[in-house]
Amino acid sequence: MRAVVYRGREDLDITDVPEGPVGPGEVRLEVGFNGICGSDLHEYYAGPIFIPDGEKHPLTGRELPLTLGHEFSGTVAEVGAGVENAAVGDRVAVMPLYTCGVCPRCREGRYNVCAQIGFHGLMADGGMAERTVVPSHMLHALPDEVSLEMGALVEPMAVAYHAAKLGDVNPGSTALVFGAGPIGIGLWFALRGMGVENVQVVEPSATRRAAIERLGAATLDPTADDVPALVNDMTGGRGADACYDAAGVAPAVATALNALGAGRPMVSVAIYETPLETPLLNLVLGESRIQGSLCYTHEDYRAVIELMSRGHYDTTGWVEKIAMRDVVDEGFEALHAGRKMKVLVDPSIAIA
Amino acid sequence: MRAVVYRGREDLDITDVPEGPVGPGEVRLEVGFNGICGSDLHEYYAGPIFIPDGEKHPLTGRELPLTLGHEFSGTVAEVGAGVENAAVGDRVAVMPLYTCGVCPRCREGRYNVCAQIGFHGLMADGGMAERTVVPSHMLHALPDEVSLEMGALVEPMAVAYHAAKLGDVNPGSTALVFGAGPIGIGLWFALRGMGVENVQVVEPSATRRAAIERLGAATLDPTADDVPALVNDMTGGRGADACYDAAGVAPAVATALNALGAGRPMVSVAIYETPLETPLLNLVLGESRIQGSLCYTHEDYRAVIELMSRGHYDTTGWVEKIAMRDVVDEGFEALHAGRKMKVLVDPSIAIA
Ligand SMILES: [Zn+2]
Ligand SMILES: [Zn+2]
Ligand SMILES: [Zn+2]
Ligand SMILES: [Zn+2]
Repeated sequence: MRAVVYRGREDLDITDVPEGPVGPGEVRLEVGFNGICGSDLHEYYAGPIFIPDGEKHPLTGRELPLTLGHEFSGTVAEVGAGVENAAVGDRVAVMPLYTCGVCPRCREGRYNVCAQIGFHGLMADGGMAERTVVPSHMLHALPDEVSLEMGALVEPMAVAYHAAKLGDVNPGSTALVFGAGPIGIGLWFALRGMGVENVQVVEPSATRRAAIERLGAATLDPTADDVPALVNDMTGGRGADACYDAAGVAPAVATALNALGAGRPMVSVAIYETPLETPLLNLVLGESRIQGSLCYTHEDYRAVIELMSRGHYDTTGWVEKIAMRDVVDEGFEALHAGRKMKVLVDPSIAIA
Repeated sequence: MRAVVYRGREDLDITDVPEGPVGPGEVRLEVGFNGICGSDLHEYYAGPIFIPDGEKHPLTGRELPLTLGHEFSGTVAEVGAGVENAAVGDRVAVMPLYTCGVCPRCREGRYNVCAQIGFHGLMADGGMAERTVVPSHMLHALPDEVSLEMGALVEPMAVAYHAAKLGDVNPGSTALVFGAGPIGIGLWFALRGMGVENVQVVEPSATRRAAIERLGAATLDPTADDVPALVNDMTGGRGADACYDAAGVAPAVATALNALGAGRPMVSVAIYETPLETPLLNLVLGESRIQGSLCYTHEDYRAVIELMSRGHYDTTGWVEKIAMRDVVDEGFEALHAGRKMKVLVDPSIAIA
């Protein structure tokens, strides 16, 4: 079958690979769609970072070359021995985490930050392929109302949903989302799905502001608006009940900490490549906090799929589909250059 | 009476000042002892910062010149009309906060971060004087077992106690305190007072390590020890349950975030003069947090005084007393140069 194989930095091979067997507890999926995400870009342009190189991952026993793709949906094509939660023909989203189950974090139920965490598509052959084999515990059934295209977005939307919860918000809250990329969009959908009335998306790019405004969001332009002053007015001097940093840059963090209410959190859900100049004095003066957020839990998957089944998520204007053969030009390079926001690889498009 | 008057940067006047009247709801105190703290040093060498200059403070109506001193104990010498919680001769510690009562923070009960907060000794004539007049709501009675010297330490020890609580610790916790200055020492006493068994004080200065070791503390030297690895071993791979930054420098913050357990807080209780390079990625990967801490509440005062009444705090080796006339040489300059750790001004020492 055809697959997108990562061999090293800026070295992707769209090629035929042999298919492995389906072991006990596993299923083979016909991939529906597979999203390309920021971590994939990091691996392509600056990696291998998370992809094991020269040492096998302790949970999967794999290292590069590996088929990429950890954001995918699919249809069950083959079921291994002992699998009870899936049947051929089932449509599913995949929670692509390998966790050890024995580290202190896993034992506390925090498997989303497992000390040995692995991803299907970074530490095992993933979903940028015609088919992939996954452990059945990774499967989440998709209701009829949720398309396979939407199913491939469950993973990034669950990243955002998980972060949204850590902001400790309620319907009366005022929340600020910094950055209108895919995770920022996911935060906006998650917060609105939780009933939060006043969500302001802070984004310097006019193109990105326009895209999220078309989905219904209110936006602020941090290059023109005095965000802390506006939020102060909106909240009767209280400040934001939660800020979310999905931008990962120092000006966003500084503005967020200036706009944040006393005792409230700024949730960090960005991959910070280097330490940032952070005005910690703001945290002290308002007894506020910066709270990290990583990945998701099965609960987050269920919550996102439930919102999707009610038609809550809308892909208009920010999600595009491409063929596997175009994954470098129309995928990685277009995303890297900011020409596209979210790209789903569709393995069913004719392989020329 | 004699007082230490702040007129501006590096301009302290030890001089005679007239005494004001005692209004309704106020008391006049004969000052026992008054500590010099880091904020006083900032005002002296880099101020005026918090001391109002050219504009009167909204709650006290005062601006410089002002008598310094917000960490003090005293004996009630005169009682104004309507005061019911104090009588002449009472020995007291003073919680020196002026709060507005009407801002959103005050209305939520977070008066320690009041938007208009003022301090007796920065925004009104303070305790570096023979006598001072305070509103009676600032008073906390000292039990017989607590000396006036100890009473002058309630304020900084309450800063530390308040921060210690925000670490969400219990007796089985492993806590790291970064910085063995007065607040670090206060954190150590507070955590031990809460029953926390394993408190490690991380301090690069051998002199400061020796001082806190003599009080009974375990210490680590971040220039020689691999703090995160040692803490990992101590906790079976879990990491610290709480870190406290009382150092306020980037290497301490970086080490603390490396040593911190998943989902756990680093409490910031330092005055960060500039934004610090902060490895926010550590917060993300462990879903941990940085939590700011400011001042104290009446509860913290009561808790510290209760611990003091049980003999929990020990001033050996880190607290020194001086006369008012020596406040610059033996106070501000000695502290600034690191020759002393904590200095109490004793206004009863003969005024030559
Ligand atoms: Zn991803
Ligand atoms: Zn684990
Ligand atoms: Zn102080
Ligand atoms: Zn207030």
